[in-house]
Amino acid sequence: MINKTIKDIRIIDIPKITDPRGNISVIEKSTLPFDIKRVYYLYDVPCDASRGGHAHKLQLEALIALSGSFEVKLNDGENVKTIMLNKPNKGLLIPVGVWRELENFSSGSVCLVMASDVFDEDDYIRDYNDFKLFKRGNI
Amino acid sequence: MINKTIKDIRIIDIPKITDPRGNISVIEKSTLPFDIKRVYYLYDVPCDASRGGHAHKLQLEALIALSGSFEVKLNDGENVKTIMLNKPNKGLLIPVGVWRELENFSSGSVCLVMASDVFDEDDYIRDYNDFKLFKRGNI
Repeated sequence: MINKTIKDIRIIDIPKITDPRGNISVIEKSTLPFDIKRVYYLYDVPCDASRGGHAHKLQLEALIALSGSFEVKLNDGENVKTIMLNKPNKGLLIPVGVWRELENFSSGSVCLVMASDVFDEDDYIRDYNDFKLFKRGNI
Repeated sequence: MINKTIKDIRIIDIPKITDPRGNISVIEKSTLPFDIKRVYYLYDVPCDASRGGHAHKLQLEALIALSGSFEVKLNDGENVKTIMLNKPNKGLLIPVGVWRELENFSSGSVCLVMASDVFDEDDYIRDYNDFKLFKRGNI
């Protein structure tokens, strides 16, 4: 887990059923590489807000911009990569042990997150120095 | 299942964590009365579109307006009720055997749906006459 890098980040194509009455995207079965145990979403985010600033030890998460756009700044302790999410049929799969920050939210944006387990504070690394220690295998 | 009525419809309060950097609502554990097997969402819906027009035989669904607003017209074969969804922390739980139509979408609205099982065409009743027969126990 500690040796996952930003090269392990994946953009998942979420099936999209286009229709003149509106589009539908569906996540089920093997769309994500985990069973969905928790769904949460960010909304009413001010344009100038920054969120995130954490990594997970065991939980996988997939992020989708259901409305508007935002940037996800990913950091594996060595390299940094920023990905703009702005399409409801594109999911960002974040491996464990990758620090993430969300920023540059557009007005009215909604970020949907699906996680591989229920909330567990022990799974969060919220301090960047702890994250560096985690990546060196010292935590 | 066939005797469920619009009286069995429930509005679920989804926990909301308010924060000046944006709000988060979380669905996990017993927030919904079923495990989430499928997540899908409607987006890019034209304002004048109408969607739905079906019932489920066995699957439960919870609908949330993640952005904007729309109306859900519910019909149990006897009575009709229309519910406006416009809050990301309110979920509409639709029992089996209730016909639903979605309409009056606001511009930019997003409807998130969580379902108790993966897609199964056999679980859908798409013809209103078939629905009436189903409610009478004849299908």
